[in-house]
Amino acid sequence: MDIAFLNGNYQQKNEIKISPDDRGFLFADGIYEVVRWYQGDFFDMKGHLARLKRSLSEVRISWPEADLFPDISLQLIKRNSLEGKPALVYIQVTRGAVPRAHAFPSPAVNPTVYAFARGFDPAPEKVAAGIGVIMKKDIRWSRCDIKSVSLLPNVLSFQEAVETGNNECIFVRDGRITECSHSNVFIVIDNIIYTHPESDNILSGISRKNVIRIAKKAGIDVRETAVNEKDIEKAEEVFISNTSSEVGPVISINGKKVGNGKPGVMTMKLKALFNEETAALRKF
Amino acid sequence: MDIAFLNGNYQQKNEIKISPDDRGFLFADGIYEVVRWYQGDFFDMKGHLARLKRSLSEVRISWPEADLFPDISLQLIKRNSLEGKPALVYIQVTRGAVPRAHAFPSPAVNPTVYAFARGFDPAPEKVAAGIGVIMKKDIRWSRCDIKSVSLLPNVLSFQEAVETGNNECIFVRDGRITECSHSNVFIVIDNIIYTHPESDNILSGISRKNVIRIAKKAGIDVRETAVNEKDIEKAEEVFISNTSSEVGPVISINGKKVGNGKPGVMTMKLKALFNEETAALRKF
Repeated sequence: MDIAFLNGNYQQKNEIKISPDDRGFLFADGIYEVVRWYQGDFFDMKGHLARLKRSLSEVRISWPEADLFPDISLQLIKRNSLEGKPALVYIQVTRGAVPRAHAFPSPAVNPTVYAFARGFDPAPEKVAAGIGVIMKKDIRWSRCDIKSVSLLPNVLSFQEAVETGNNECIFVRDGRITECSHSNVFIVIDNIIYTHPESDNILSGISRKNVIRIAKKAGIDVRETAVNEKDIEKAEEVFISNTSSEVGPVISINGKKVGNGKPGVMTMKLKALFNEETAALRKF
Repeated sequence: MDIAFLNGNYQQKNEIKISPDDRGFLFADGIYEVVRWYQGDFFDMKGHLARLKRSLSEVRISWPEADLFPDISLQLIKRNSLEGKPALVYIQVTRGAVPRAHAFPSPAVNPTVYAFARGFDPAPEKVAAGIGVIMKKDIRWSRCDIKSVSLLPNVLSFQEAVETGNNECIFVRDGRITECSHSNVFIVIDNIIYTHPESDNILSGISRKNVIRIAKKAGIDVRETAVNEKDIEKAEEVFISNTSSEVGPVISINGKKVGNGKPGVMTMKLKALFNEETAALRKF
């Protein structure tokens, strides 16, 4: 049986229940984080912890024990015997359970802290083969920099991708490409990698930051500059990045081939360099 | 003890628990409705039921028993002995509980249907005395016409109002006044009432529709035309409408008086006409 974490306790996941008064359920008043386990260590736990704290701070949810996140994550890996498997830890912190009213509870109540771990099949060959994406209007709010659970826009957009046989949805806001429904996006034009700069309109992805670092180290020209929607036709390569699929080549957009319709050379080079770093974490 | 409703069963509210896999909790993947009970009947249940069905349809959550909403609401009033009191019924329908993944569950799972009733003090004298509001950028998504539980932007904006001693937050998008964090807004200039037209940028409020109907019947010129932010200074009167406060005069915006700083004549006339209709519902 899966063991999950709720408010300080490790317990059977199927016995964990949330109050219907939880502000996560009633108002999407909470934030989350996902970190990946590489058979020996988490990838950039420091980055994930920093972002968790930033999200909490931006929505003003107080969880004084946030520094326990790495330990809770490791406990969940161990208690679920996932040490030797590819796995993810998910954590969600909401403003707590209190009778429904829009304003923050006053006095404040304890936040709800819920976390679980699960093994998964990263399907590296499938990811490396490349994915199709759709491109559509960014319908999300103006604070996409906060990793909140207010994800209905992301869900509805991603579902459109799925139903058209695609794997992600690239968002366009005011004519500029921002990111995807749950990944960041990189566009290669004239051998330069472009990605939207950090702003209120994108989530500052941990994988995004690491891809930029790795690319720069490899001597690749990376620019944090937004690409105009119409310039996507000039793209030689496109790829996405996120915690679960790492670097994912995009081979079609709205049914049209990107470049020659195969994963790009620069993309695959970055993917290999990324894999080298994660492979170094493995102990089991 | 309060009796609430979950998936077909009436039970003690404090015994109701939601799965942490519920998509309402993880993704804000759900919609809601609030209807007011006037000691004898609900106000415009037909309108609320139609909007509930529209919200479900727009986010593609299937709840084939949606027509039970009026009966569930009445049962909750009765089982909580609220017949003779001012009360509200809240209902929330989410896409159900299933291990976390952005895409809709396939095959679909049963939706989660949760509802509760509670008595409340409508504080008519306090509402009639007028409220202060702040005005700020609309940070919400582009589908505000859907009454979804993806409410974090509304919560954060409303909280700013509360912390500055105000009672609501008027949103401005692209220079135009849209609505408030959980009410619609009406602006009177030269004896004409303006309110934002139905669009993706506002929720089509049930009270809003009824206020427009009542105003027109009273021979007042009402125009569904957005007001520019800068024209708010010309406003003779401003008022909000929603299910819990009905018609609420606004007497200050960002600390500046509206008109003479007292509830307007036209506002109070509409409030009286609205009250006449709700008073006619009373049996207890």
